Amino acid sequence: MAVYTHLGTEALAELIAYYDVGRLISAKGIAEGVSNSNWLIETRKGDATSRFILTMYERRIDIAELPFFLNLLDHLAAKGCAVPGTIHDRVGASWREIDGKAVALIEFLPGVSPSNPTASQAHAVGSALARVHLASADFPSSRMNALGPAQGRDTLEACKSSLQTIDSQMRRALEMARTVVDRWPTDLPTAIIHSDLFPDNVLMLDDTVSGLIDFYFACTGAMAYDLAVTHAAWSFDKRGERLNHEIGSALIAGYEKVRPLTNSEREALPLLAEGACLRFVASRTEDWLDTPPNAQVERKDPMDFLRRWQIYRREGARAFGEAFTGS
Amino acid sequence: MAVYTHLGTEALAELIAYYDVGRLISAKGIAEGVSNSNWLIETRKGDATSRFILTMYERRIDIAELPFFLNLLDHLAAKGCAVPGTIHDRVGASWREIDGKAVALIEFLPGVSPSNPTASQAHAVGSALARVHLASADFPSSRMNALGPAQGRDTLEACKSSLQTIDSQMRRALEMARTVVDRWPTDLPTAIIHSDLFPDNVLMLDDTVSGLIDFYFACTGAMAYDLAVTHAAWSFDKRGERLNHEIGSALIAGYEKVRPLTNSEREALPLLAEGACLRFVASRTEDWLDTPPNAQVERKDPMDFLRRWQIYRREGARAFGEAFTGS
Repeated sequence: MAVYTHLGTEALAELIAYYDVGRLISAKGIAEGVSNSNWLIETRKGDATSRFILTMYERRIDIAELPFFLNLLDHLAAKGCAVPGTIHDRVGASWREIDGKAVALIEFLPGVSPSNPTASQAHAVGSALARVHLASADFPSSRMNALGPAQGRDTLEACKSSLQTIDSQMRRALEMARTVVDRWPTDLPTAIIHSDLFPDNVLMLDDTVSGLIDFYFACTGAMAYDLAVTHAAWSFDKRGERLNHEIGSALIAGYEKVRPLTNSEREALPLLAEGACLRFVASRTEDWLDTPPNAQVERKDPMDFLRRWQIYRREGARAFGEAFTGS
Repeated sequence: MAVYTHLGTEALAELIAYYDVGRLISAKGIAEGVSNSNWLIETRKGDATSRFILTMYERRIDIAELPFFLNLLDHLAAKGCAVPGTIHDRVGASWREIDGKAVALIEFLPGVSPSNPTASQAHAVGSALARVHLASADFPSSRMNALGPAQGRDTLEACKSSLQTIDSQMRRALEMARTVVDRWPTDLPTAIIHSDLFPDNVLMLDDTVSGLIDFYFACTGAMAYDLAVTHAAWSFDKRGERLNHEIGSALIAGYEKVRPLTNSEREALPLLAEGACLRFVASRTEDWLDTPPNAQVERKDPMDFLRRWQIYRREGARAFGEAFTGS
């Protein structure tokens, strides 16, 4: 988490002048985002001050895909979802280029990300996620999920010979991945899904969701898969050693309060959760093997999600509470 | 520039509750400070929101010295200087401890640091610096300058055998340092000096100084030396290849508008400026030799200030404009 690019004050002020937001009175580089640089910007227009997040897209994001992400924010914000809208410049563009890099000015939302979420917070997040799914129904664009189970399996296949250097348990991951891919459902109802809704990407004021952020993995996909990703991200301790059923059940109850799951979604949930774990095991394995142990960047341990995966596989429907085991 | 410590939302909220500032509604780690972690904090109390900088002191700063720095901010702010005051907790303390580290909550000031300062901006900074010097006259504490010319010479002496690995020109620095120490004046009027007033440490709204920040090198010292440090920091291009006389003269004129220099200060200024360069050459040399070239932290090139130093030595009084050559 860093600010990758130095943007001088004069360059920032010049950029801000393209927007009808008043004059720049403060700019602080913020330590958020792994593939973007971000600044918390404050402007003054008459007596009123406003705050924005200025995001510079450094890598991973294809500029051709930026309209998908930014239009999605505007679409969801217009429908009342707790997501930041984008600020358009004086000629209506939602992003600009500076020094060959794309930048967007995005609404600042208050709120803090819970480090130790409570069940009430998980409930609220479940409802907010369901609202995004419903609100995206008439979003006119689609985007393929580049991080599905088949890609996860292929990543592990490519890293096969090095898996056991991470942990002896990792040798099992590839075989587990193959069974997930073989059984993967293809007929579940889809929408635009966030697909990365970790607590870091949720802003809250007490038990209220004030913002869902970082939609840069959003894509077309099974809504229940998005719920499974969120379940895996919220309902465990950091190392993935223990499933907190209270948090997990609250998350699902919050979701179903807004959008009840279909029977096939409920039945698929255990497998979808395995797929969610596969995705993070695969991407973290790739990063882990690419990053020298003495590099100054933090490596996320693939084992954190292999442990979750093993719990989902062992528990099956029980991982989602009593309401699921009976269905 | 980084946030060195992770502070979870719940820990932050708990910390903020010790202050009478309302409840935490936003916290962003900001990429500022080389020896501190900093967060831009927002709180809400009734309908009013307030912003603060929360600083965690990570290293270099001895906790025993913290009262000096924080009381100085309060003293200067109370006298109307553009510096951030500290927020005291409910029992009146200006700092607290969390996880064994000292933290302080400091007023947020608007403003941006100029990357390419103008003469009018330098003029305003000169006046602001003079106001700090005058306002500190009755500050009851003192602190020794640990980065004076003798220490600079000693640092270069200790690095002697490696100097030429940096640049062949660096061999001259040690001899230059000895002459600066030998001629160093000891009878100039003193005050509490900032001693690190680079543009990065000044917040401005157009041509107005809205904040002088980062007083963690402040100490008792010659006021004219502080002006010389500021001259060296503001009046050159980044690499120190070219002295901008217009900026330098505006800085001094701004200073003298508030506090005219004495004759001995004017005469000492060229040597003081050499001492300012010595200080940064020495500290950067130490950092340079301590940091492997492939480390992910930016090494500041000692040559940037050796070049300034050579210009000051060559130009003498002329470096400060016509008004100085006649004195």
